[in-house]
Amino acid sequence: MSVEDKQQARHKFQAVFSKISNECLDYLKENQMPSEAVKWFDDNLQYNTPGGKLNRGMSVVDTYSILKGGKISQEEYERAAILGWCVELLQAYFLVADDMMDGSITRRGQPCWYRQPQIGNIAINDAFMLEAAIYHILKLHFKKESYYVNLLELFHDVTFKTELGQLVDLITADEEKVDLDKFSLDKHHYIVVYKTAFYSFYLPVALAMFMSGLSDENLHQNALDVLIPLGEYFQVQDDYLDAFGKPEQIGKIGTDIEDNKCSWCVCIALQLANKEQRKVLDENYGRKNPEQADRIKALYSEMEIESKFKSYEKEAHDRIVSLIEKVDEKSGMRKEAYYSFLYKVFGRTK
Amino acid sequence: MSVEDKQQARHKFQAVFSKISNECLDYLKENQMPSEAVKWFDDNLQYNTPGGKLNRGMSVVDTYSILKGGKISQEEYERAAILGWCVELLQAYFLVADDMMDGSITRRGQPCWYRQPQIGNIAINDAFMLEAAIYHILKLHFKKESYYVNLLELFHDVTFKTELGQLVDLITADEEKVDLDKFSLDKHHYIVVYKTAFYSFYLPVALAMFMSGLSDENLHQNALDVLIPLGEYFQVQDDYLDAFGKPEQIGKIGTDIEDNKCSWCVCIALQLANKEQRKVLDENYGRKNPEQADRIKALYSEMEIESKFKSYEKEAHDRIVSLIEKVDEKSGMRKEAYYSFLYKVFGRTK
Repeated sequence: MSVEDKQQARHKFQAVFSKISNECLDYLKENQMPSEAVKWFDDNLQYNTPGGKLNRGMSVVDTYSILKGGKISQEEYERAAILGWCVELLQAYFLVADDMMDGSITRRGQPCWYRQPQIGNIAINDAFMLEAAIYHILKLHFKKESYYVNLLELFHDVTFKTELGQLVDLITADEEKVDLDKFSLDKHHYIVVYKTAFYSFYLPVALAMFMSGLSDENLHQNALDVLIPLGEYFQVQDDYLDAFGKPEQIGKIGTDIEDNKCSWCVCIALQLANKEQRKVLDENYGRKNPEQADRIKALYSEMEIESKFKSYEKEAHDRIVSLIEKVDEKSGMRKEAYYSFLYKVFGRTK
Repeated sequence: MSVEDKQQARHKFQAVFSKISNECLDYLKENQMPSEAVKWFDDNLQYNTPGGKLNRGMSVVDTYSILKGGKISQEEYERAAILGWCVELLQAYFLVADDMMDGSITRRGQPCWYRQPQIGNIAINDAFMLEAAIYHILKLHFKKESYYVNLLELFHDVTFKTELGQLVDLITADEEKVDLDKFSLDKHHYIVVYKTAFYSFYLPVALAMFMSGLSDENLHQNALDVLIPLGEYFQVQDDYLDAFGKPEQIGKIGTDIEDNKCSWCVCIALQLANKEQRKVLDENYGRKNPEQADRIKALYSEMEIESKFKSYEKEAHDRIVSLIEKVDEKSGMRKEAYYSFLYKVFGRTK
């Protein structure tokens, strides 16, 4: 897809957000909400929902289009996009709260919502309302569909799982008290699968599947079997780029080391470290001092974490391809739906 | 009901919580969650859910029993109690978050959850998980029921409405910046109806109605017509007791005046105040100084807020009784279901 086509696709997708955010505001007005509160919610929606890469939301539309053989009507487009925006609302709900829990300063190049003047802890309720908007929109547009209850349960279940991942992440990577014994590849696996892969990879595909009439449990299990490892690879790559990517390439300066993150890199290093290397890790990881972070990066080089990543990457790629190749297209599922994710994820540099 | 009967009813109801909290923990274990995270969620559930008065949860059982003519089986009891615990989980979700947003110190005689050592802002995710538990439990126990989707939509809608009320409350009563122009009886009405009445009064009855097969929209509209004014009266009474109740009678020391709350008392005072009285309000309301709070209380006496409350109380009581008397029992709804709420609310002293 050319840059222009991508931008056009983005604009088309964003137009649907205007529609659903107006529907949410209409609900508030019907409920006689004072105008300053309506404005507050509007600001919340606009500030937190549409400013990201929109990959998750747009992939609902892309997947739906693939499942329908490539041609969909404007009406179908809009309905798939509405589901896509529900994914983006879910993400907005998580991010507003995550930023508060992590004490983050900026998000998507602007101050985090809770750091806006006069907002502060009211952002907790604002996060709740972003989540509530999902169910309001689903009811408005999908109540009459046979798969309506599947959509509700899917959002409930994916939400719960993401919160489990967030909890494990929060109690594993305490910024105040560095304890590398808490880190392991198993823990890393758990956190990335639960905190990221379910809602970023399985959820958009599952929504498109339900909308296409694919609700069979085995088909959804197969989708999980492919998409969860893909989501895990995506996050490992993210961890890798945080330590090894050039800032001009990844568009940010990685701070996982300073932030005591349970990154794939440190988990691999911990697994392979001798006594001396472990000492370097213990004494330098999770400290705000850039020289200590550089000491960790030097250790990563010494331990050849980069080449370990390259082997992991090749192994993951081949494993996922072989899973995709097992898909029985007579079921209505399409290999292409998975490959389009695979290409995006394995091709990216940021 | 005697004190012993009440205690027994409470114990019976609490036994059902053990069952559903175990079911939630089983879900975490099935999802291979690390044991320290399972323990964390267990602590969250136990600390925040069962320690209140349980009126809301138990009223699902009471209402269901009335709708079924007074005799229900153990199995029916348990299912109604499960729905009751979902109301208590919803309340726990709100309260954990409200305490953070209000900067509260204690709740139910113990430190607020977020003020426990090592919890802090992780309480935001803990609140999310209390909400997620509701939908997990509903799916486990009610998925096969024809009214399952009604239950889901009811929780979604009541949750959204409560959050609307919370938002209006938060942006109206800013503790940092007292501005009595923001207060009015209309605003007060909005806040109490949305923030309290829907989830405390309509939700328990609506759940019992669905479980009894009463899902007709008009019947639910009638329930709203009775229960929302009743819930509003409940909160007005709460506001009144905060200012006029004796601490030994209401079990706490009222701080609405110091906390700049949009209380019914101050709204009435604002409505009736002459220029001089308004000046006293502006200069003394919402200040942490006990002498200034006493000055407001003296003004309330001078303005006869107490007798205004008594007239409001009588008017509200008679209005609600006449609404209850209009109930057509041939529909399956029972006046007694409403009267049992009315008696509890109009009889209470704390």
